[in-house]
Amino acid sequence: MNTKKILLRSRPQGVPDQNNFEFVEEQIESPNEGELLLKALYISVDPYMRGRMNDAKSYAPPYKVNEPITGGVVAEVVESRHPKFEKGDVILGSLPWQTYSISDGKGVQKIDPEVAPLSYHLGILGMPGLTAYCGLLFIGEPKEGETVVVSGAAGAVGTVVGQIAKLKGCRVIGIAGTDEKVAYLKEELGFDEAINYKTTPDIAKALEQACPNGVDIYFDNVGGDISDAVYTLLNKFARIAICGQIAFYNATSRPTGPRIEPMLLTKSCLMKGFIVGDYAARFPEAAKDLTAWVKAGKLKYEESITEGFDNLPQAFLGLFKGENTGKQLVKIADRSTQE
Amino acid sequence: MNTKKILLRSRPQGVPDQNNFEFVEEQIESPNEGELLLKALYISVDPYMRGRMNDAKSYAPPYKVNEPITGGVVAEVVESRHPKFEKGDVILGSLPWQTYSISDGKGVQKIDPEVAPLSYHLGILGMPGLTAYCGLLFIGEPKEGETVVVSGAAGAVGTVVGQIAKLKGCRVIGIAGTDEKVAYLKEELGFDEAINYKTTPDIAKALEQACPNGVDIYFDNVGGDISDAVYTLLNKFARIAICGQIAFYNATSRPTGPRIEPMLLTKSCLMKGFIVGDYAARFPEAAKDLTAWVKAGKLKYEESITEGFDNLPQAFLGLFKGENTGKQLVKIADRSTQE
Repeated sequence: MNTKKILLRSRPQGVPDQNNFEFVEEQIESPNEGELLLKALYISVDPYMRGRMNDAKSYAPPYKVNEPITGGVVAEVVESRHPKFEKGDVILGSLPWQTYSISDGKGVQKIDPEVAPLSYHLGILGMPGLTAYCGLLFIGEPKEGETVVVSGAAGAVGTVVGQIAKLKGCRVIGIAGTDEKVAYLKEELGFDEAINYKTTPDIAKALEQACPNGVDIYFDNVGGDISDAVYTLLNKFARIAICGQIAFYNATSRPTGPRIEPMLLTKSCLMKGFIVGDYAARFPEAAKDLTAWVKAGKLKYEESITEGFDNLPQAFLGLFKGENTGKQLVKIADRSTQE
Repeated sequence: MNTKKILLRSRPQGVPDQNNFEFVEEQIESPNEGELLLKALYISVDPYMRGRMNDAKSYAPPYKVNEPITGGVVAEVVESRHPKFEKGDVILGSLPWQTYSISDGKGVQKIDPEVAPLSYHLGILGMPGLTAYCGLLFIGEPKEGETVVVSGAAGAVGTVVGQIAKLKGCRVIGIAGTDEKVAYLKEELGFDEAINYKTTPDIAKALEQACPNGVDIYFDNVGGDISDAVYTLLNKFARIAICGQIAFYNATSRPTGPRIEPMLLTKSCLMKGFIVGDYAARFPEAAKDLTAWVKAGKLKYEESITEGFDNLPQAFLGLFKGENTGKQLVKIADRSTQE
């Protein structure tokens, strides 16, 4: 049996492009004792992967040149010689960008196909949903009546942050990059206000109008100028959860900007960077809440699904152009056991 | 009876000087029912007062032009028509820069002259000591074996931070501005290392040598370039307590520098600005510990005492030139009841 693979051909300088990826096809052996043969159904593309393409120490180890990109994948067990898995099981794991792969079962967990559509486990019930939940609730600690601003609001994490903040009784303002996204946030997801940062001439002023009581929580996915505008409105004891800094992921030199320490000092603000794994001990409660909210229709969820393994790099590159609303995924194959 | 007063004559642009202060002398009336006549014994000068000289909203309200500067004062009750105070009591309060003043007793607390020298209540047992205790323990949360870096290490707050960190079993590195201060920190206060930022050509390199296991807690009194050097050594889950930003107190435009959010993100760091009043609910436990440590000789304490009311502005201005080691005070008068 053959598998397609996508390797990191070269480390991007600045904005990545198709030339940083290399497609290869090679034979895949049958699994040995204790191993699984997996067929990829959905592969996740996420902004944090850009950081792993650099040869720099960060929260996740860098990808290696000439080896496959890895990330979140929902896959089907095609053949199992592992005691814990059976043919037909659906699993979630951190796996290579391959149509088929061999796994020893480590870091691979079975998912229940009855709970929600399979792809949800890469989004609202997976890493992005847990990220939103943990960052907002454990760093932001929202209280009823507070004002929450979310940047990257129409993305996989931002859409969930805003909706949970609404469930907690907050006023929620989203910042996004197209009028369609702004309309989606306000009309579909119940955000109180949303601002198109690309067409609004004075974001600080627009935010000021949208936040008459200032900002108590800022959930930041983007960084840069947008954050500077939000900072001017922070209330005493405001909390800032730094979840992403997509503005700088493709930076080739260290970005500069206004010093924020004096502002954090005069307002007694808390700023905390995090990755979802920091809160692993609290995933069970988070997953329970998220699943219940999704089932009850309290959390709406949108996916941008690109079809076909060959389109993986393009779907990834689109993240940095703001092309996706909600979680960006690539569908690789149908589940064979459904038929 | 006459009192001398020091008014804010004008708001400083940039670095303040003697011309921003005005001395006046005027008659003071006897206290009315419910009031006290107070004689200043020690007046505190503190870096945060610079911020109150600007007409800007900050954590403390701005001073008014043509009105007295106010701040921490230890005073003696000369005459009391207040039921809670008697002639001869020594009090601590936020009072005007005057040799004598009338108070209604609000915000004024009696201090026990037996516990420690009276001036200590403006320093290690007062606002600076509480600031050090609360910022280090409640934001920094030091654990045995961790590395703590303190900037402004030889000041009223920094000297206490470093010593408490040593009591908690940490490796402590201080950053200060003269060789005398560096020697004092290492030889008198037990800091593991101290760095003279004015004479060390490469602070980042010196810090790297002093912190072989990276930095877990950074207690920042100064901000700016010194902080940038410390940031490069932060460990995963490091905590940064922003206590002061003296580098910028005299800035006339908004300072810029490297963006720190990406670094906070990749290292899951916490940064928290604070003022001591944020932790008022915990002052009793803090005061109890500080008093016990001072009595037991576990916390050493140094004061820079300038003599004479007329020298108050000069003592204040010296804070921004790094002239003081330990707490800077001005002695106004002896306690009359001691004689």
